[in-house]
Amino acid sequence: MNDKHLGRQTVALQDPPSVLAFSNIGGKFESQGPLAGSFDELEQDSFFGQKTWEKAESVMQKRVLERALQKAGLQSSDLDYIFAGDLLNQCIGSSFGLRGSDIPFFGLYGACSTMGESLALAALIIDGGFARKAAAVTSSHFCTAERQYRMPVPYGSQRPPTAQWTATAAGCTILGDSGPGPYVTHVTCGKIVDKGITDANNMGAAMAPAAYDTLSAFFRDTGTAPGDYDLIITGDLGELGHSIVRDFFHQDGVDLPAFQDCGMLLYDRKAQDMHAGASGCGCAASVLNGYLLSGLRQGTWKRILFAPTGALLSPVSSCQGESIPGICHALCLCAEK
Amino acid sequence: MNDKHLGRQTVALQDPPSVLAFSNIGGKFESQGPLAGSFDELEQDSFFGQKTWEKAESVMQKRVLERALQKAGLQSSDLDYIFAGDLLNQCIGSSFGLRGSDIPFFGLYGACSTMGESLALAALIIDGGFARKAAAVTSSHFCTAERQYRMPVPYGSQRPPTAQWTATAAGCTILGDSGPGPYVTHVTCGKIVDKGITDANNMGAAMAPAAYDTLSAFFRDTGTAPGDYDLIITGDLGELGHSIVRDFFHQDGVDLPAFQDCGMLLYDRKAQDMHAGASGCGCAASVLNGYLLSGLRQGTWKRILFAPTGALLSPVSSCQGESIPGICHALCLCAEK
Repeated sequence: MNDKHLGRQTVALQDPPSVLAFSNIGGKFESQGPLAGSFDELEQDSFFGQKTWEKAESVMQKRVLERALQKAGLQSSDLDYIFAGDLLNQCIGSSFGLRGSDIPFFGLYGACSTMGESLALAALIIDGGFARKAAAVTSSHFCTAERQYRMPVPYGSQRPPTAQWTATAAGCTILGDSGPGPYVTHVTCGKIVDKGITDANNMGAAMAPAAYDTLSAFFRDTGTAPGDYDLIITGDLGELGHSIVRDFFHQDGVDLPAFQDCGMLLYDRKAQDMHAGASGCGCAASVLNGYLLSGLRQGTWKRILFAPTGALLSPVSSCQGESIPGICHALCLCAEK
Repeated sequence: MNDKHLGRQTVALQDPPSVLAFSNIGGKFESQGPLAGSFDELEQDSFFGQKTWEKAESVMQKRVLERALQKAGLQSSDLDYIFAGDLLNQCIGSSFGLRGSDIPFFGLYGACSTMGESLALAALIIDGGFARKAAAVTSSHFCTAERQYRMPVPYGSQRPPTAQWTATAAGCTILGDSGPGPYVTHVTCGKIVDKGITDANNMGAAMAPAAYDTLSAFFRDTGTAPGDYDLIITGDLGELGHSIVRDFFHQDGVDLPAFQDCGMLLYDRKAQDMHAGASGCGCAASVLNGYLLSGLRQGTWKRILFAPTGALLSPVSSCQGESIPGICHALCLCAEK
């Protein structure tokens, strides 16, 4: 074990990188949800002025990066690295969205955990002294995800109650080696956890064991308890996955007093009826880079444990009868160092 | 710019991480090629004992990790992180192959540059003091790639002369904070470069500008010249891409005296007729984790510049008329620190 590691999985950053700026963008349904006021931009056109939804998703990534740079008063040449990924095959949302940015690029695939993975790597690279500033970007789009993972959207297929609604949204965080905060103080890299769930319409249940595994590792490694955090928030477990994680901790005799899920916050559960909640890389990304980071800056919370989860399946793996491996990366975000 | 950076893109590692062990695996065509003797394992069954080719690809990743651990005399619990990716949609080669490893996992997507990307991040994370040991793993499989990117294999579609043959191969490198070498001394993270090539059967031409961009950045940042390296080797540019890179440098008045491409080494150009050469993540991965690292240990070369390239397209982006963005990550590997 290494000096900067607390236990097996958690790194305590020696000089916690600071959030310099953040930006998010959402689509029509996000504009009708309870967090609409925390978005920088809400677009009613699902094509974002493009000819295809895939190109629309790339535009979202491009715009959130540009806006975050603008908010930080930076040029793209000020960024040493960009860490990005998305749900599309071969991650084309990122590669096409960011190809004009002229920034050294590390492409990631962490499914819906990508906002956590990208932020974790950006924080480590900065704290290691390899970058002064780096960006973390991710996105999802309901229409690109539906036709890739499930059915063409015009079919209007019926969705089971456990299904979630992929957010049309993107988010970007720019981290720096010094700044006003909030700060990334701890990073816990998750392991792949597969408990044998095979229902691709029940991602929450598939990802819940990974969330439990990573959050447990975080508490164990840091010697802290859930009550030490003003908010513990997963990415897109949805209602069912969220309750499963609560149950897992309950079996350990541990309460989660302030436990939320980005997927349960993005839409209005009654008025919008998105079944089990929101999902997609863009869900956690847009909730973090708006509602959560704004709240940390404004004093709503002092210490957040942000733990987005990803389901590492593909339509091919499901067709071949495979179960759904999950992963969860956790970061501790603090208003002060 | 930060102290550890030489110029914009290159990091000089302060305490160069050492290769502790490496392993590779190949399929039938790799067993008939000129590098067959540098493989740890060559399997004649394209299914690797599984029911599907996708599962076969996962088995390759699992086996190279296990063998590299065995060669290093390590347990999976000795690894602080694993960095892995592949070409399959949602990178299922990695997530299913490594789900049982119980190692903190960062999933990557860099197309055929993934061996460079994973090794670069592993080296940075170790040099930053966040890990003592980490693994970098990647794979490709001819049959999974063909049916995903092009046509079902049984169609027997004719291939144009510029086409390459996706290697059925995988490789794993285990890096540590101290060891006998070879050492990773420099890392250059590439930018996405898109010069408008749209022919998905001519990946070499699409990726060549990225290779030129990253190699140029490396020489500029380090103040070295091609002649300072015993071998400069790209990943899978193939014959055409390789000659384009040579031409680009020639236009700058720069000769590349010892310039090779893994894609031109893996198969016998006459006897096997793979057209422009090998491709796929597994090409650079298996050539590095056999022929190249063995050669560094045995004194064939003292200093190698390893620069695998990736084409960041998808079948969907091509169908939508998009050009092919490329990327290239470069690492300097030295027999001695």
